[in-house]
Amino acid sequence: MGRPTREIRSTLSSKGRLELRVVQSEAPDPAPDEVTVRIEASPINPSDLGLLLGPADMSTASASTSDDGPIVTAEVPETLLAGVAGRLDQSLPVGNEGAGVVVAAGSSDAAQALLGRTVSLIGGGMYTELRTIKVAQCMALPSGTTPAEGASWFVNPLTALGMLETMRAEGHEALVHTAAASNLGQMLVKLCTADGVELVNVVRRPAQEELLRGLGAKHVVDSSAASFEADLVSALSATGATLAFDATGGGELAGTILSCMERAQSAGAAEYSRYGSTTHKQVYIYGGLDRSPTLLRRDFGMAWGLGGWLLTAFLQRAGFETVQRLRDRVAAELKTTFASHYTKEVSLSGALELGSLALYGRQATGEKVLINPSRE
Amino acid sequence: MGRPTREIRSTLSSKGRLELRVVQSEAPDPAPDEVTVRIEASPINPSDLGLLLGPADMSTASASTSDDGPIVTAEVPETLLAGVAGRLDQSLPVGNEGAGVVVAAGSSDAAQALLGRTVSLIGGGMYTELRTIKVAQCMALPSGTTPAEGASWFVNPLTALGMLETMRAEGHEALVHTAAASNLGQMLVKLCTADGVELVNVVRRPAQEELLRGLGAKHVVDSSAASFEADLVSALSATGATLAFDATGGGELAGTILSCMERAQSAGAAEYSRYGSTTHKQVYIYGGLDRSPTLLRRDFGMAWGLGGWLLTAFLQRAGFETVQRLRDRVAAELKTTFASHYTKEVSLSGALELGSLALYGRQATGEKVLINPSRE
Repeated sequence: MGRPTREIRSTLSSKGRLELRVVQSEAPDPAPDEVTVRIEASPINPSDLGLLLGPADMSTASASTSDDGPIVTAEVPETLLAGVAGRLDQSLPVGNEGAGVVVAAGSSDAAQALLGRTVSLIGGGMYTELRTIKVAQCMALPSGTTPAEGASWFVNPLTALGMLETMRAEGHEALVHTAAASNLGQMLVKLCTADGVELVNVVRRPAQEELLRGLGAKHVVDSSAASFEADLVSALSATGATLAFDATGGGELAGTILSCMERAQSAGAAEYSRYGSTTHKQVYIYGGLDRSPTLLRRDFGMAWGLGGWLLTAFLQRAGFETVQRLRDRVAAELKTTFASHYTKEVSLSGALELGSLALYGRQATGEKVLINPSRE
Repeated sequence: MGRPTREIRSTLSSKGRLELRVVQSEAPDPAPDEVTVRIEASPINPSDLGLLLGPADMSTASASTSDDGPIVTAEVPETLLAGVAGRLDQSLPVGNEGAGVVVAAGSSDAAQALLGRTVSLIGGGMYTELRTIKVAQCMALPSGTTPAEGASWFVNPLTALGMLETMRAEGHEALVHTAAASNLGQMLVKLCTADGVELVNVVRRPAQEELLRGLGAKHVVDSSAASFEADLVSALSATGATLAFDATGGGELAGTILSCMERAQSAGAAEYSRYGSTTHKQVYIYGGLDRSPTLLRRDFGMAWGLGGWLLTAFLQRAGFETVQRLRDRVAAELKTTFASHYTKEVSLSGALELGSLALYGRQATGEKVLINPSRE
């Protein structure tokens, strides 16, 4: 049978056209180990934009309306279609994480225990009124926590925690983070303060520096400043950071960080080595705010690494017990360390207004949109 | 007291001038655990060029003569001086490895046992007539092996073996190698055949493809061919190679290899993931034949890594027993798997002739020069 629901779908056609729609759909009745959740809050994260917008050129976006709600279309440059061949001509649900109230539960004890509870959930397709999902993908929220407070429980908090876990597992002692004024960046400032880990925040504007210093950040360097590289070397020398997480990916930033790490590490070297310092310097690219190619000048010796870092891959490597420990910490600190801030709340239809769509690309500046599918 | 010797020295002045000279020097008397070796063969490896030439612009090279032999000078672009600040205004000996006859030995049994023996040695400063060095840095050669046969015993053989050790340690099943027609590349072809490891050889010219096929190489792709990327994807699919060692470093090659690995890996994917395949793809840069920046288009998902790979760092991580095992194998297979070929033998003075210097930069094409300091 199932229950009727409305949800956002994204389709990239093989003709090079992106179409976003709100469509009528059906949330299946829950299996024994499943629940059906009325979604009341789901954030639009940078990590949602890849699926939502693909490589479409949003400057070509135009809007129309059907009986079900708005339809947005935009052109995809033909050269970029090969990179998304696997999803062409499929209508895909969108939205990684969210929170809401359990309105139906399967027969298992675990499912029944959630009936009526406010839960956070992860697993895609969250931009919908009703979502049927496995109990294991839900986390019951402490009483007094609203769906809006619990909506961003997974991607940002576990990414921030995952960065610290990675730092410890790979033997580094301090961290560098770029696009550091983002919601995730602010969370990381609070988390590192709580855990006593030194953090070098790289921001792109003086106003962002003020914001982070207001949160107690000790090391903030502004990449728009003429003194950027010297400032970064100083901060790296002061902290000993040899691991960076870069949200931008493109351009010279990752290479500049490696180069400044090398300068900080080799400053005290007793003997010249043309292979550079023996201390391993690592940058992980975990986002792609800058889609341009990554450029490395390789002026940082031979002891270096650059790589992709993906939350799901990290969690898989970390194993069940670690993940459970991290989830428990998120639940306990949702309103403090892991609190998210939204600048706008929209309905499903509102999420597809051209004005809203234009906002999403600017999220790293502090703009963050929350979808409330139960609002119309 | 010591013994008089003549050796090649390289000096980069803080004024931006490279000077290469043959100078009079002295080989100290051997300490108890040392020997003095009359060097009869020492190769000019790509890994020697960094110390020998630094970042000098060799198109500006000019030659003169002193009583001791030739003097070569060349200009170093001012912007590149900061990268070599640690060696400025120091007269540095050159030459990583070599072979010769032990002419004096310290009092220890280990040193005395080498007296009169032909040995290979490692440790820098090999472009000299006499070199005093620790016994631990020597390897006695099997009888019937000449210094010329034993001169390239360390850098190339242990790099080739180190690539295979790294492959196994990091869970890959096959290898990609660039600049594959080099002496090292030819060695790797023979080694992989002997060990039953699939190897994808990337060369830059059709003639190099023929050379490697003549050695029994199965997968050779020519980066100058219009079909290069398609050929590479085919070879990567056939071999399952997810690890590459890149000697060039600069330009787009490393990124193209990651991209083709991703295409080979995701070809059979059942479901679309915008984060790409979950198989980790790794490229190590171990040389810098192309000094231009490395450019990554990042069209290869999130499960990837790029990093520096340095023989000395590998050996340090590998530990004594592994290194001993690898050295024993090199000694046993010096005339077969690990045989090197030289296109020219020169004296110390001959090594500094402008015509010889012009050759060194072309080594990856098969040109390889051997210095015999005992020849005049």
